[in-house]
Amino acid sequence: MPQNDDVKAFMPGERVTLAPLGTGALDGLHFAVKDLFDVAGAPTTYGNPDWARTHPVAAATAPVVLDLLEAGAALAGKTKTVELAYGLTGENVWYETPVNPHAPDRFPGGSSCGSAAAVAAGLVDFALGSDTGGSVRIPASYCGVFGIRPSWGAVSLAGACGLGPSFDTCGWFARSAAVMEKVGSVLLPAEGPGLPGPILKAEEAWINAEPATARALGPAMSALEAIAGAPMRVEVAPEGLPALYEHFRCVQAQEAWATLGSWVAATAPRFGPGVAERFAAAREMDPAKAAAGRAFRRAFRLRIATMLAGGAVMAYPTSPCAAPKLSVSLAGQNTVREATMGVTAIAGLGGLCEVSLPVAKVDGAPVGLSLVAAAGRDRALLRLAAALASELSLP
Amino acid sequence: MPQNDDVKAFMPGERVTLAPLGTGALDGLHFAVKDLFDVAGAPTTYGNPDWARTHPVAAATAPVVLDLLEAGAALAGKTKTVELAYGLTGENVWYETPVNPHAPDRFPGGSSCGSAAAVAAGLVDFALGSDTGGSVRIPASYCGVFGIRPSWGAVSLAGACGLGPSFDTCGWFARSAAVMEKVGSVLLPAEGPGLPGPILKAEEAWINAEPATARALGPAMSALEAIAGAPMRVEVAPEGLPALYEHFRCVQAQEAWATLGSWVAATAPRFGPGVAERFAAAREMDPAKAAAGRAFRRAFRLRIATMLAGGAVMAYPTSPCAAPKLSVSLAGQNTVREATMGVTAIAGLGGLCEVSLPVAKVDGAPVGLSLVAAAGRDRALLRLAAALASELSLP
Repeated sequence: MPQNDDVKAFMPGERVTLAPLGTGALDGLHFAVKDLFDVAGAPTTYGNPDWARTHPVAAATAPVVLDLLEAGAALAGKTKTVELAYGLTGENVWYETPVNPHAPDRFPGGSSCGSAAAVAAGLVDFALGSDTGGSVRIPASYCGVFGIRPSWGAVSLAGACGLGPSFDTCGWFARSAAVMEKVGSVLLPAEGPGLPGPILKAEEAWINAEPATARALGPAMSALEAIAGAPMRVEVAPEGLPALYEHFRCVQAQEAWATLGSWVAATAPRFGPGVAERFAAAREMDPAKAAAGRAFRRAFRLRIATMLAGGAVMAYPTSPCAAPKLSVSLAGQNTVREATMGVTAIAGLGGLCEVSLPVAKVDGAPVGLSLVAAAGRDRALLRLAAALASELSLP
Repeated sequence: MPQNDDVKAFMPGERVTLAPLGTGALDGLHFAVKDLFDVAGAPTTYGNPDWARTHPVAAATAPVVLDLLEAGAALAGKTKTVELAYGLTGENVWYETPVNPHAPDRFPGGSSCGSAAAVAAGLVDFALGSDTGGSVRIPASYCGVFGIRPSWGAVSLAGACGLGPSFDTCGWFARSAAVMEKVGSVLLPAEGPGLPGPILKAEEAWINAEPATARALGPAMSALEAIAGAPMRVEVAPEGLPALYEHFRCVQAQEAWATLGSWVAATAPRFGPGVAERFAAAREMDPAKAAAGRAFRRAFRLRIATMLAGGAVMAYPTSPCAAPKLSVSLAGQNTVREATMGVTAIAGLGGLCEVSLPVAKVDGAPVGLSLVAAAGRDRALLRLAAALASELSLP
């Protein structure tokens, strides 16, 4: 694996590396981990210098990292994260924002920015990230790599920093569907047979996408039709994607403050742009709004479970547009975030698994197509993603 | 509610109380929370003075506590926990072990010892606990109250201290099945219709129980047969309960060190009897053994899911015996723990929901009968428990 890091994906300083602990499905592969997973002997910065300063160096390695080492992979380093994983652009003012290798004038996406950039640049074969509100899916779409947000609870987050525990998941990135599946064979629970379909074209997410993005994904949808049949149009959110985002936001903000508020209040850490504001909003979250969000989530899960029960798979644009340019204003970033998180909230609220495939470009910048299945169908979903990648002659 | 605390269930010092935030299903009820759930403005001791000393006072209240307040309940105080929730007897040498109200010469069971004791003594209507390896089920059995370990992931643990994240659950205790259901109506996800049965008598757990315990549970099994039909005998663990316990122990120990090891290593805290030894073992856990434990868990979940798919419910003794006497040696405690955790590992490894009902006594001390269902069937399981309680004329 290359040792240079022109895209600034890795944490600065000496690289945290570990040799494999065994042999298996991941023999010969190198991986990186987002710097919110503990590796014994190394600091876990969580993207913020005050977090690093106020927490001991990790004494233990996260079990998910040990599983990868046991299966033959070698750790090549720790990658940058948005501070406390609370942001979607991938910006980190303390350790420098990673470069988007396929669109250097644009954000890499976050919060798992370094992991996506390291994979896109070919520095590692795969990389671990975490996804609460889109933090694997969005950088996968923006950086033009495969990424999975597994079903909630499918992969252990022991030894990883939390943000919104009822949404937090451990996902990963790779440049090929085959490597995505290999990692899944190590980390994911066993499950029943495949996903017979049908393919559901979730209307709201397509309408929400910029027309150029929807057009660019057309060939991939045709390829999906060739292998899985004509898609059926469905409404997944008659109440509107903004309502989904709002319910997600209220539940997640309350959990973020419950998880990290004591530290924020006691430490008064320095934060980069936007992060302090998000924690201030989290602190003020009305408990009645969060309770209403949880009530909505319960009803939404029943609805989605019914829709996906027979093995159906939803398909829609991972992000409504390619990565925003680095020059975009904070207000512009907020507009993109709101449009994006209405879509990512579908799998977030539903606890569903979602795979983003790097199938297209808009204005030369990557955009991903997402396949989304019922909770617990992660392996079958990765198989379907591999079949689609093969049909499209992707790696 | 009585203000005295003869059973020493509550944390010493000024009681942490909160008025309801709204009205709903829990109007008029008082509850307590195990002192590993955050309540804003109060310390979270996690049962250990060095934990309290090295962590800031909570700035936020755990969402699960807010949900109960929103639904009309009033918080009456924080209850004692075994240090870092890592123990089953209920002993706490720093804050004094709570008294088992129905068997004062015996342990209360842990780690949610204070919550079980507070409910058993009538100090509150219900109380929150957490259950990783039996920490709600065992004190429920020992103290003679209802207790539920919900399906893994069903209730948010945001704002609660973790021990083994892939096993940790948020459960509760009450003296009546009706209150158990009311709390469930607030905290549990919506779900489909009931559990049609059959009842499965899990052979190994009955053979593992002391004969007096198995005999004492006979009338409750007859009552269960009267409402749900004759039980079928099944083998749930042909590899033996000790194998289940061993796999559980390896996975959980690795997660415990991943979750708490950095703090233990940096702080070198004082620990009561047994706790330091458990963390030392956790630190030394062989990653290959933990990986094998996770592989076993995957296969076990598929097997159990098949067994319970049609709405079947397993029934077996919650604990193989009544609470050990306070005078029992550490070696004697270890023997009981091993026999106990082979049984509690069934729901633990399976991610299942389990309700313990206070149906019998042995030598004057309580023992519980457990009903165990597939993940996600918590509400239906509580309904079945209520039907059985009614058949037995329990509250």
